[in-house]
Formats: sequence, structure tokens, C-alpha cells
Amino acid sequence: MTPTLRGLGEEKLLAGLLPQLSRNSRTLVGAGDDCAVVKCAAVNNWLLLKTDCVVEEIHFAKETPAAAVGWKAMMRALSDFAAMSGIPEFALVTLAIAHKKKVLWVDGLYRGLNRAAAAFNVAIVGGETSDTVGSTVVAVAVAGFAERARCVLRSGGKAKDDLFVTGQLGGSNRGRHLNFMPRIDEARWLTANFKVHAMIDLSDGLGADLPRLAQASKLGFAIEKRALPVTRGCTLQQAISDGEDYELLFAIAPGDRAQLEKRWRKKFPKLALTRIGQLDRTSNFKHQSLPSGYVHFRQRR
Amino acid sequence: MTPTLRGLGEEKLLAGLLPQLSRNSRTLVGAGDDCAVVKCAAVNNWLLLKTDCVVEEIHFAKETPAAAVGWKAMMRALSDFAAMSGIPEFALVTLAIAHKKKVLWVDGLYRGLNRAAAAFNVAIVGGETSDTVGSTVVAVAVAGFAERARCVLRSGGKAKDDLFVTGQLGGSNRGRHLNFMPRIDEARWLTANFKVHAMIDLSDGLGADLPRLAQASKLGFAIEKRALPVTRGCTLQQAISDGEDYELLFAIAPGDRAQLEKRWRKKFPKLALTRIGQLDRTSNFKHQSLPSGYVHFRQRR
Repeated sequence: MTPTLRGLGEEKLLAGLLPQLSRNSRTLVGAGDDCAVVKCAAVNNWLLLKTDCVVEEIHFAKETPAAAVGWKAMMRALSDFAAMSGIPEFALVTLAIAHKKKVLWVDGLYRGLNRAAAAFNVAIVGGETSDTVGSTVVAVAVAGFAERARCVLRSGGKAKDDLFVTGQLGGSNRGRHLNFMPRIDEARWLTANFKVHAMIDLSDGLGADLPRLAQASKLGFAIEKRALPVTRGCTLQQAISDGEDYELLFAIAPGDRAQLEKRWRKKFPKLALTRIGQLDRTSNFKHQSLPSGYVHFRQRR
Repeated sequence: MTPTLRGLGEEKLLAGLLPQLSRNSRTLVGAGDDCAVVKCAAVNNWLLLKTDCVVEEIHFAKETPAAAVGWKAMMRALSDFAAMSGIPEFALVTLAIAHKKKVLWVDGLYRGLNRAAAAFNVAIVGGETSDTVGSTVVAVAVAGFAERARCVLRSGGKAKDDLFVTGQLGGSNRGRHLNFMPRIDEARWLTANFKVHAMIDLSDGLGADLPRLAQASKLGFAIEKRALPVTRGCTLQQAISDGEDYELLFAIAPGDRAQLEKRWRKKFPKLALTRIGQLDRTSNFKHQSLPSGYVHFRQRR
């Protein structure tokens, strides 16, 4: 008999989890006091804040390994930092889980959370655990920063900007949605070397996220569907609407295209970078013929 | 028929909620982009981070008014800022809720969240909403700051320090757990005028939270049970173990007692301040005879 959460109790659960939490050098007081106390980033930086969650039977199945759930829960939030060219630093984990669940499951969850956080030097500085009579919910809130000049919003796109995506799109539900790497290193390299006008991470699929970027930039877009980097074995429809690609979509001046493509191949030889179209002033994002991406409260996975 | 979340869809839900979110002047980009972008507090301050959650059937009943759930969800996290003498500034809301729930319920929830946030000039700068097949979970993560010299940990208590609590203890489940005010103003006044050695907010009850403060300070404690400020109509046992008082418990040098009591009465004439005992070196917190407070995974409310 492996122990349940109720059998172990909260204090002992925390006593086991706390010493193993991912740490970094900017944490003054981590989990264990009323709030975490951390060093503020330099005055010339913006503070970035993001929360995201994964829910049992929505974002993961009952039989999904707990460590994979933890990885996904952390990396979803970190992917939003990639989308801003930000550097994530501190994470807070909120867990609602039934007391009849096994302690081993929570251990596995935190193994995944810690591994994902440590991959980007993120410290898990606090959390909250509550009983529930329903599905397990893992919410991860992350704080970090971006230099003022390198923080990329969705809203900075200009007419005639080229649109690029990293990697391949579609088919994430075959497994990649559980073990993807947020494109933080790639985003940081981009903003260190080029002027990226607008960026977003593809979490709901190109069909949902591209219109968001265009709308925020008050522009339309034109996509060359034959150019889309479709995952092998997937249809065009899947590439557009499966979602959970966690790749970057960004807009950049057409004059930068040649240099970008050349230097990207050298820097990231294993990761595709594909021009898929452009932003434009005439077409209206509302009239585009893209099928929709994943929309919450309408679809399930 | 009032519409359900599924009927409305996520985009329309957000279009209704976003313009109403509590704001403040330090928010650069609020909800709507990948991360929120906010101004970092001054370099001489610490950044404070906290997350907390309320879960249906654990922290609130199905019939609890949605606005009261929102108030409680926000104020629980803000109460932890009070415990550090911190100033909360930015909140992120993560909501897992079934698509069959009414849009009106979510509107009410956000009315409560906004009202609570605005009471302390906190901006709601982002959030995430997900479908669930289980209980509603509302997680609130908050970022804020404390001046280095005024940030109060649990661990700074000294032997012979007097222990004080604000307000009355016990009976919170009669309604106060849904409409309490975090003691932020009181905590800020305390650290502006006195050297508070250690502080905690009473969320799990004196029986659970006092041993935590003592243990963090590596001390024991002695309580005068007859001195405890018991809510009218409650037993001593309830005052110690009901939990959800959200009052402050703090440790301060005995030499400060007379001044503190005198100036407190003048500043906060409607809120009791009671010396309940002291920290000491000889007794061991493990051998105290206090009944336990609320312990997660063991009790329900």
C-alpha cells in the first residue's frame, strides 16, 4: 500500500517536497514563509507576470505520468515568457488534488515541475496545496523580466512584415504536448540579433493565435498554406488547428529575411524556421479563411 | 435562460471581463498579451510573491454567492502580504470551471475579485481560464513588495518577545471567512512605528499557525489561554482551531508593549489588540498543549 495524501498529511508532504524545489541565486526566502521574498530585477527591466494551468481530463489524462504533467504545467507558462523574449525566474505552484490520491503521484508531479524549472534556472519559490472533491488542477504562476528594449508584444507588427514560425505544426497530441521545450533560447537569440516587431507562442494553434497577433497589431495577414511546416503525417487542417505546438510565431521586417534565415540555420541547425506569409493592411483578420484553433469551453482534449 | 460558459465561448467571456479588471498606474500591459508587463518596484525593495486558491466544496459551498468567492480568493492571498508587512500590487487569476456553469457566476466572481483588489489598489494583470469536469478552482497569485527594513518574516522572533493578536478568534465559518479584511493597513502601521520581530496571518488557526511562527524562530511559546480574544459565542477550542481568522499574530520586544497598546487604541479604536503570551527558549513547541488548527487533507469545511 503506497500512502495517500490524507494518510501522510500536509506537513509531512511539504517536508518531503520543499528541500527538493528548484532554486536560484536570486531567491531570499523560498517556500515556507507567508510570501516568497526575491530580489527585484534591475530598474531598467520590466517585470513580467504569467499564470497558466493544466486540468485533469482537459490537458492531461488520468493515466498520464505525473512527471509529464509537471513538465507540461511549468513549460506552458515558460512558453509565454518565450513569446515576450522574457527570462522567467520565479514560479509559484498551486495544486488542488483529492486527498485520496497517492503521495507518489505528487512526488512525480514535482519531479517534472522541478526538472522543467531547472532547465531554465527558474526557482520554485512557493505554492499552495488544497484538497478537492473534483479533478486535479495544477496552476503555475511565473515572474521574470525582460529588458525594456527586448520585450516583444503581440501588438508591434507592421504592414508587410514577414511572418515566421519555428519548428513543425500539428500532431502535438501524439506526445509532444507533454515534453516540448519552450523556445526561450531561440527568442532571446532573436531579440539579441534582430528587431522582432511582434511575437506570440502557438498554444491554441496557428488558426487561433495568428489572428490574435494580427488583431493586436491592427492588421490583417496573408498565409501561403503550401509553405506551412506541417508535421510529418499530419494534414494541413491539423497543423492549423490542433494547437499545443508551443512554437514561436513572429513578425519581422522583410529586409531582415535573408540575414535571419542564414544566421538561424547556423545557430539552430536542428530547428526549422519557416516564412509562412506576411502581415498586411488590406485583408481583414475577420475574413481570413483559416480554420479555427483550439477554443476553450468548445472543444475537449 | 442565462447563458453558460460553453454557449458564450472564451473570447466573448474575456471581452466582457477584461475591460472591468482592477487597474493601477504601474501596469504597462495588463491581461491580453502573453505575459503581463509591469514596472518593477524600486531597487531597495524586495519583490514578494504569493499564490493561494479556493476550491468549491472545500473553501466555499456551491450556494456561496460568486462575488463572495471572488472576495475570499483575492483576500486570502493579500492576507499573506499583511503577514510580511508587504504591499500587494499585481494579481493573476487562474480559474478552472465547468463549461456548463453560468456566465453570470463568473461575472459575480470577477466582481468580488475586482472589488477586493481595488480595495488595496491591486491591479488584476492577467489570468487563465480552463474548462474542468470537476469542482471549480480559483487560484490567485500576487506580486508586490516590501521595503527591506520593513519585511517581516516568521523567523525573527526572540525569546521573551510578547505575542499579540489582532481582532477576535474563532467562528469565522459563520460568515467572516467570506468577507474579512486583510490586516494590511494595520501591518504597515506596525512596521512604520515599531520593530516587529516576526509575524504570520492566522489562516489555519492559532493552534496551527503559532507553532509555525515559533518553529521558524527556533523557539517555544507560552500562551495564557484566559487572555485569548475569543469571538462572542465561541469556545476556547474554536478560537484556537477553527482557522480562517485572517488576523495577525506577531512578536515584539516586551519593552515596546506599553507604547504599542496605547498607540494602537488611538489608531485602531475598533480593532482589538491582545497580548496572548510570549515566546520563550525553554518550552518546546512540540510539547505545547494547544489543540491543532486546520490541517489540509485531514479536515473538511
